[in-house]
Amino acid sequence: MNKLEMTEAIILAKQAKALSWEAIAASMAMGTVWVTSACLGKNSMPENAASKLCDILELSEEVKAALIAYPTKTWEQQVPQDPLVYRLYEIVGVYGDTLKEVIQEKFGDGIMSAIDFTMDVEKIEDPKGDRVLLTMNGKFLPYKAW
Amino acid sequence: MNKLEMTEAIILAKQAKALSWEAIAASMAMGTVWVTSACLGKNSMPENAASKLCDILELSEEVKAALIAYPTKTWEQQVPQDPLVYRLYEIVGVYGDTLKEVIQEKFGDGIMSAIDFTMDVEKIEDPKGDRVLLTMNGKFLPYKAW
Amino acid sequence: MNKLEMTEAIILAKQAKALSWEAIAASMAMGTVWVTSACLGKNSMPENAASKLCDILELSEEVKAALIAYPTKTWEQQVPQDPLVYRLYEIVGVYGDTLKEVIQEKFGDGIMSAIDFTMDVEKIEDPKGDRVLLTMNGKFLPYKAW
Amino acid sequence: MNKLEMTEAIILAKQAKALSWEAIAASMAMGTVWVTSACLGKNSMPENAASKLCDILELSEEVKAALIAYPTKTWEQQVPQDPLVYRLYEIVGVYGDTLKEVIQEKFGDGIMSAIDFTMDVEKIEDPKGDRVLLTMNGKFLPYKAW
Amino acid sequence: MNKLEMTEAIILAKQAKALSWEAIAASMAMGTVWVTSACLGKNSMPENAASKLCDILELSEEVKAALIAYPTKTWEQQVPQDPLVYRLYEIVGVYGDTLKEVIQEKFGDGIMSAIDFTMDVEKIEDPKGDRVLLTMNGKFLPYKAW
Amino acid sequence: MNKLEMTEAIILAKQAKALSWEAIAASMAMGTVWVTSACLGKNSMPENAASKLCDILELSEEVKAALIAYPTKTWEQQVPQDPLVYRLYEIVGVYGDTLKEVIQEKFGDGIMSAIDFTMDVEKIEDPKGDRVLLTMNGKFLPYKAW
Amino acid sequence: MNKLEMTEAIILAKQAKALSWEAIAASMAMGTVWVTSACLGKNSMPENAASKLCDILELSEEVKAALIAYPTKTWEQQVPQDPLVYRLYEIVGVYGDTLKEVIQEKFGDGIMSAIDFTMDVEKIEDPKGDRVLLTMNGKFLPYKAW
Amino acid sequence: MNKLEMTEAIILAKQAKALSWEAIAASMAMGTVWVTSACLGKNSMPENAASKLCDILELSEEVKAALIAYPTKTWEQQVPQDPLVYRLYEIVGVYGDTLKEVIQEKFGDGIMSAIDFTMDVEKIEDPKGDRVLLTMNGKFLPYKAW
Amino acid sequence: MNKLEMTEAIILAKQAKALSWEAIAASMAMGTVWVTSACLGKNSMPENAASKLCDILELSEEVKAALIAYPTKTWEQQVPQDPLVYRLYEIVGVYGDTLKEVIQEKFGDGIMSAIDFTMDVEKIEDPKGDRVLLTMNGKFLPYKAW
Amino acid sequence: MNKLEMTEAIILAKQAKALSWEAIAASMAMGTVWVTSACLGKNSMPENAASKLCDILELSEEVKAALIAYPTKTWEQQVPQDPLVYRLYEIVGVYGDTLKEVIQEKFGDGIMSAIDFTMDVEKIEDPKGDRVLLTMNGKFLPYKAW
Repeated sequence: MNKLEMTEAIILAKQAKALSWEAIAASMAMGTVWVTSACLGKNSMPENAASKLCDILELSEEVKAALIAYPTKTWEQQVPQDPLVYRLYEIVGVYGDTLKEVIQEKFGDGIMSAIDFTMDVEKIEDPKGDRVLLTMNGKFLPYKAW
Repeated sequence: MNKLEMTEAIILAKQAKALSWEAIAASMAMGTVWVTSACLGKNSMPENAASKLCDILELSEEVKAALIAYPTKTWEQQVPQDPLVYRLYEIVGVYGDTLKEVIQEKFGDGIMSAIDFTMDVEKIEDPKGDRVLLTMNGKFLPYKAW
Repeated sequence: MNKLEMTEAIILAKQAKALSWEAIAASMAMGTVWVTSACLGKNSMPENAASKLCDILELSEEVKAALIAYPTKTWEQQVPQDPLVYRLYEIVGVYGDTLKEVIQEKFGDGIMSAIDFTMDVEKIEDPKGDRVLLTMNGKFLPYKAW
Repeated sequence: MNKLEMTEAIILAKQAKALSWEAIAASMAMGTVWVTSACLGKNSMPENAASKLCDILELSEEVKAALIAYPTKTWEQQVPQDPLVYRLYEIVGVYGDTLKEVIQEKFGDGIMSAIDFTMDVEKIEDPKGDRVLLTMNGKFLPYKAW
Repeated sequence: MNKLEMTEAIILAKQAKALSWEAIAASMAMGTVWVTSACLGKNSMPENAASKLCDILELSEEVKAALIAYPTKTWEQQVPQDPLVYRLYEIVGVYGDTLKEVIQEKFGDGIMSAIDFTMDVEKIEDPKGDRVLLTMNGKFLPYKAW
Repeated sequence: MNKLEMTEAIILAKQAKALSWEAIAASMAMGTVWVTSACLGKNSMPENAASKLCDILELSEEVKAALIAYPTKTWEQQVPQDPLVYRLYEIVGVYGDTLKEVIQEKFGDGIMSAIDFTMDVEKIEDPKGDRVLLTMNGKFLPYKAW
Repeated sequence: MNKLEMTEAIILAKQAKALSWEAIAASMAMGTVWVTSACLGKNSMPENAASKLCDILELSEEVKAALIAYPTKTWEQQVPQDPLVYRLYEIVGVYGDTLKEVIQEKFGDGIMSAIDFTMDVEKIEDPKGDRVLLTMNGKFLPYKAW
Repeated sequence: MNKLEMTEAIILAKQAKALSWEAIAASMAMGTVWVTSACLGKNSMPENAASKLCDILELSEEVKAALIAYPTKTWEQQVPQDPLVYRLYEIVGVYGDTLKEVIQEKFGDGIMSAIDFTMDVEKIEDPKGDRVLLTMNGKFLPYKAW
Repeated sequence: MNKLEMTEAIILAKQAKALSWEAIAASMAMGTVWVTSACLGKNSMPENAASKLCDILELSEEVKAALIAYPTKTWEQQVPQDPLVYRLYEIVGVYGDTLKEVIQEKFGDGIMSAIDFTMDVEKIEDPKGDRVLLTMNGKFLPYKAW
Repeated sequence: MNKLEMTEAIILAKQAKALSWEAIAASMAMGTVWVTSACLGKNSMPENAASKLCDILELSEEVKAALIAYPTKTWEQQVPQDPLVYRLYEIVGVYGDTLKEVIQEKFGDGIMSAIDFTMDVEKIEDPKGDRVLLTMNGKFLPYKAW
């Protein structure tokens, strides 16, 4: 079973049980973004987390094995098109140099890791229109001189 | 004076006064990311903010006018290459579909605005390596049916 | 049932009943452009609209569910090729900077939303050749300073 | 004098006289979008219109000649990046096939001309946020069989 | 039946009857280039022409319906590769600006329509090597000022 | 003097003398399209033709030498954008496969040369709108088997 | 039977009979490169050659018909990736301008035809490492003036 | 002096002395293609060859140093456009897989080196049109297993 | 059996026997990187190595034949996206010019072969985080002058 | 002084003193690859190293400041073209998936850092042709689950 088939199986089970990603992640005591990304095939799930997920959704050993497998992370178009995803790309385009200036001023020459990294989405209710609060937390890695 | 020349003038003045973006933004009582982005020519500065900035850095009326001008926001390469900026692009590639799932589950069909939007960078000290905390806050815009 | 299969089912039913998009939209008391876009899988239909459409075209619950699902909006080629669609792209290329000048002069720095947005097509009969009247109506979103 | 230098001369004169595109177009009794596009070098101005414009802005014969010259219409990036222009591109991507369906249902097989074409921008004031009304009016051209 | 299947059906029938495109078009009293393009799915055929073609080739009602359907015109590679097609592309690249100069000198600012357009191929026998005579005839469309 | 500077010199002289490409080509007893293409730097002019042109336009020996030089033929964008040139590209996209079918049916497997090739533009006056008649004439080159 | 299926059939028969391309071409008294290219679907084979090939490899009439069919010549990636093919592309990149200089110095302004063209591969044994001798022979086509 | 300035200096001197590449290479007792490529900046010239060239063309020590410098070999467009160079690219596209088949059948798995490599251009006079004979000679490099 | 099916067969057998690439390569007394690359279809395996591998994994003659076949080496995206592979691409981008400087200073003008080439991966345990030691060893090939 | 001007100044001084990168790095007791990359503007040099370098090469304070500045790391073409650099890109293309398999088998799911990373080039003399030994050493970063 490959990651694509795994994702289909998970989504069918999730719909059948009418569970949200948030509820699934909460029963697993893990972050919603991370659990969703692993279910979409973009992260490998450690064995005990995969077991718990398969218990909750009553999924087979094959799905569990596919969850544990190390994924190849790719995306289809260099410039994303779905409006929600494009807005994130646009933020990187418009604010990329700014973030480089601000982060390197604060931390020195280096980068924010996208590997030793967590992310969270929260909803802030607001009468003028609710707001999305997106938080990224990545280890700073200084460039090495040798 | 175009935005490019404006940025050069600001950076020279900032170096001469040995001020950080954070210190400049603090004296203006505005966010560091936003002030930096306006100084790099990626946002238009309201007049009173532009005045304050030009006072702090002892810059000319021309710089002030260039700060107020509405920018055309572009970036050079569809896929960014500087490692710090690429990591942000990679996060969009790897987690884009996940964020779509999680945000639309929480808010319904729509997007997070990149226009009615703020962003902040914080440093979390950590003995195992300091961490970058990047916070984005955008209004949720539901798709309209008509 | 995915959006692609849904579109095929709708088009077959529409041909069998010899209904136009305009007639379908009129029975639903909604805009032709929007109804068509939802049937082509580019917008999510609210439940009651989806019910009405499935009644009109005698379509299954599966189609209804697919209509309600939140779509991923993508398109195949960065530069469209079909002559009708290319002409729209060409208008954006030739008049993009002009619209930026004119809209921002009228409204200040910001954009016209493509999310809080409606569109309409009308036919203007003309002995020298009928004309297409295409109307777009989008909320103006001012850039936020913070 | 090429179109680029012409645009610079016009914008300097327009700023010196503190005139808006709308006011300039009104004195010429022509459309704001079209006048702006000709001043940005994307359309050729008929001689009498060019004379009137140069009178209003006190510009030289050279500028007038450059206004009359037939332009080569190009744009820099296949996918535009400035958020205002990108939203227009996104509309073409998301609604292109829909417009093809709706226009060809109404008019038969053919296209909306981008040459025998006019466009207008209006501001609709709205307490929940002003709206941009963008109107395009193009001749329908049926495909020829031979 | 989609355009692809239609093309296959036509080509099989054409081979079975050992008819050339030229002969088919002649029996229909229409142009060879146009008839071929409609059979390859790049143009919509009016009903009576489609009837005649299906009579000649003894094809089903389904093929007729597919011939009448309005096509989406696309091509696979931005730069064509087959040597015959590439040479045409090369002519556009090498002579595009020249044609713009010559046509606009003769007609004023505007374009040659690719919609109100016909094309013909003739063979000129020549002892030093036969020659292809390719004739395009398109309506001139002047740019509109408004 | 390179081809770019040569083109500028020719166009200035042509404007000063108020000559059209057609008139220049007629005095040289050569084709308008070819003469224009050589003046735009896309073809090399034989010495006697270059002499005649420089006589007509009173241009220097340097211009003559630049006219005679063998050009490198390139164009800037893989997909042209100016509407007049794009329409030609679109014709190649829409009718490329058709022309391959029709030419190879008439001539056998091979191509129309873009080197041993001539082209002409004529104006056909028409009360419903003048028409552009574009004629290409290229030697047929059969593929060689060996 | 299309060219792809034809190639598969030929390669299976060739493996079953343990024949090399060189041996097949030798029995046909034709060039190895040309025979191989026709078998890979990149050239059309004249009928008698196709008959001979099908005799040698005991292939069906369908394969013969597919060998005779005129191919559409395309390749998958603009920049080839297989190391053997890339090296050829690299030679064109590094030496393209040089070959233009040298050929046009020797022959005048024009090109080497890729249609009236033959190619051969030979092995030169050498104790320091065998060498590939690749010979191309193309008709020179002078640019036409008209 | 960089390679670009060097090439200009060489070409000016070559024109002043009315020497061909072939004559220059002959006086140096080296290959015309290689000498030309080094003069165009695509190869590094050994010191004694560079001395001889500078003697022949009466060029400075600076030119000599630039000839000796190791070049960075790049080319502007992934798909070349000048017709002479494009035909070479087309040959790689059409015959690339064929050459892979034929070379690897003769030599085993490996490539023809583009580094340990020579190339030659000859003119074959022919009453039906002269022919270009292009010969490439590269060391075969077998893939290593380890 | 093509290379894709071969890779699937090998991976299933490897999982069934719970063998690592390292263990397989060790039993074959060959390098892990090379054995893995041949199993992934990117290198041809000499017959005796292929026999040994098929013995170890109990695979069919068909797999053996596929292992021996000469591969066409391609990759899907010009810029890789999986984070592990992208980091290698980034190293080439950031350090490519540096390696050119350092290698050519040490060896003269030429390249490091990617054909006569071996590669090895080792794990260096480190309490601050284990390290990957990647070693490449390629023959230096000097550019030839002729 | 920007990084480009800095590199030019360093290379002129290095040539004037006839020093190799290796000798410069040795006097600084740092790695040749790293020192070269910082001099080419691809890494930031710590202050004491920059001082030492400027002492060795007798360079100004401005060069020192430019060496210390944090660089933006970019490269010109997505697919490099210089043969030496392309071979490295080819290795990533051919062996990328293999390295992912081998590294993740040895270390678990994660990547080799390109930031906490060192690289070295050595020359291995060999009578059959010297060899380049390229060693990369990067920290393994495991993907984080949260």
